[in-house]
Amino acid sequence: MAITEIRTISFAGAGNVATHLAPALANAGYGIRHIVSRTAGRAEKLAQLTGGIPSADPSVIDDSADLLLLAISDHAIPGFVAGLKALGRFHGIVAHTSGSQPLSAISQHFGRAGIFYPLQTFSKISNPDIRRVPFCIEGDSDETTTLLSAVAARVSDDVRLISSEQRAILHLSAVFACNFTNHMYAIASRLIEKSGVAPDILLPLIDETAKRLQGQDPALLQTGPAVRGDVSTIEKHLRMLEGEAELQQIYTMLSENIRRYNDELKR
Amino acid sequence: MAITEIRTISFAGAGNVATHLAPALANAGYGIRHIVSRTAGRAEKLAQLTGGIPSADPSVIDDSADLLLLAISDHAIPGFVAGLKALGRFHGIVAHTSGSQPLSAISQHFGRAGIFYPLQTFSKISNPDIRRVPFCIEGDSDETTTLLSAVAARVSDDVRLISSEQRAILHLSAVFACNFTNHMYAIASRLIEKSGVAPDILLPLIDETAKRLQGQDPALLQTGPAVRGDVSTIEKHLRMLEGEAELQQIYTMLSENIRRYNDELKR
Repeated sequence: MAITEIRTISFAGAGNVATHLAPALANAGYGIRHIVSRTAGRAEKLAQLTGGIPSADPSVIDDSADLLLLAISDHAIPGFVAGLKALGRFHGIVAHTSGSQPLSAISQHFGRAGIFYPLQTFSKISNPDIRRVPFCIEGDSDETTTLLSAVAARVSDDVRLISSEQRAILHLSAVFACNFTNHMYAIASRLIEKSGVAPDILLPLIDETAKRLQGQDPALLQTGPAVRGDVSTIEKHLRMLEGEAELQQIYTMLSENIRRYNDELKR
Repeated sequence: MAITEIRTISFAGAGNVATHLAPALANAGYGIRHIVSRTAGRAEKLAQLTGGIPSADPSVIDDSADLLLLAISDHAIPGFVAGLKALGRFHGIVAHTSGSQPLSAISQHFGRAGIFYPLQTFSKISNPDIRRVPFCIEGDSDETTTLLSAVAARVSDDVRLISSEQRAILHLSAVFACNFTNHMYAIASRLIEKSGVAPDILLPLIDETAKRLQGQDPALLQTGPAVRGDVSTIEKHLRMLEGEAELQQIYTMLSENIRRYNDELKR
């Protein structure tokens, strides 16, 4: 059965990724078929939003959809795909939305396999502009790649062909650019709370630090005591962190690493 | 000589802070008088923008201005203020714009002393909205505090009275929220460059990570392998960082610290 165009999509998973993708795809004109989640309430809510059919049972997934998007935990992917194959009711394209799982997590079990990875952080409270989200596409064949790219292009202006090796590096980079960055915000918040100042005082600074990037090399934009080699401020800060050994270590290690990057820029 | 309202301002320093503050103050109706900088070209450029008088010689600073704003390096402040007092030609209010220097850096040498600290990162390429910049004000008397607050309120909607002790904590927090955050961006960029993918692919993720905060506790928004306790992804990432001992240490230390914060949230 050759698919010349994807028109219908089922989802496995009804968490943050599915909750942002499924409505965007429905708005772009795709028919949403089954939405399968062990958390019945979530599947029902998402089905109401998208016109899909909610279920807790993966065996409902059939050829009424051209594409099955897996928006489930990384570790659940291989088992889910093996189970789906054993059920034998779906013969379309299976693609996962994970940054860290290789294509082989699907293709080892299933015929037409692909990756449909939106490089963005999705949470309950957020509402990122899907048109700006980079979609990283990979297929087990040119046909799959073309079909998945066409779907991504209906919801986003930024569709890129990215190999599993590249995607692994992207995912690692995203841990620094998102998770570790968010932790810097968390540390800053905790420190400020002790002073009696409301942590929202940092928001314009945080916004500007992100916003000014715009294609500039971040290392060239660095400011602050570490890049200036301002030892007396660094020592003052380490004294202020007394009793917080981990924060002192983080402060020291990041300051040294900033210096190293800066030395390399000057070479 | 009592000052009931600040109308005129001179600047010491013509770097990034002065280059953003002086035009904003000029636009708000303040007369800009002397702009003193050892880098003559910068003072001239800023004087042209603001109607001030450029000079490389601090002895020009006189009572034609009600307020002298110091936008010079932290370590230069005490010496500059002592020299200004010795010259004896200025008797108005002296305020510095530094996050890390205490009020005493001025008040030990000079009569009317204050702090006029904009909590923002200013660089040549950036153009942050001054009305959103939090101005941290402190004065050696109620009169000075009131006068400086009135100036800040003419350029910003966010004026706060912040003690020197609070400001020191704010500055430390800002190192995490701005400098260390920017370094996370720098590390992510370097990692991606090796993959052949353009680092701008991270910009929407970086924007969203900053934008979604909006008064939420960042620790509650954390996602990714560390907070999930996803050991297999963490180990995979550490293997990918082989040969980069410092990055491995940073990755491990931040992941452990994220876990610790998350454990504390659950208690």
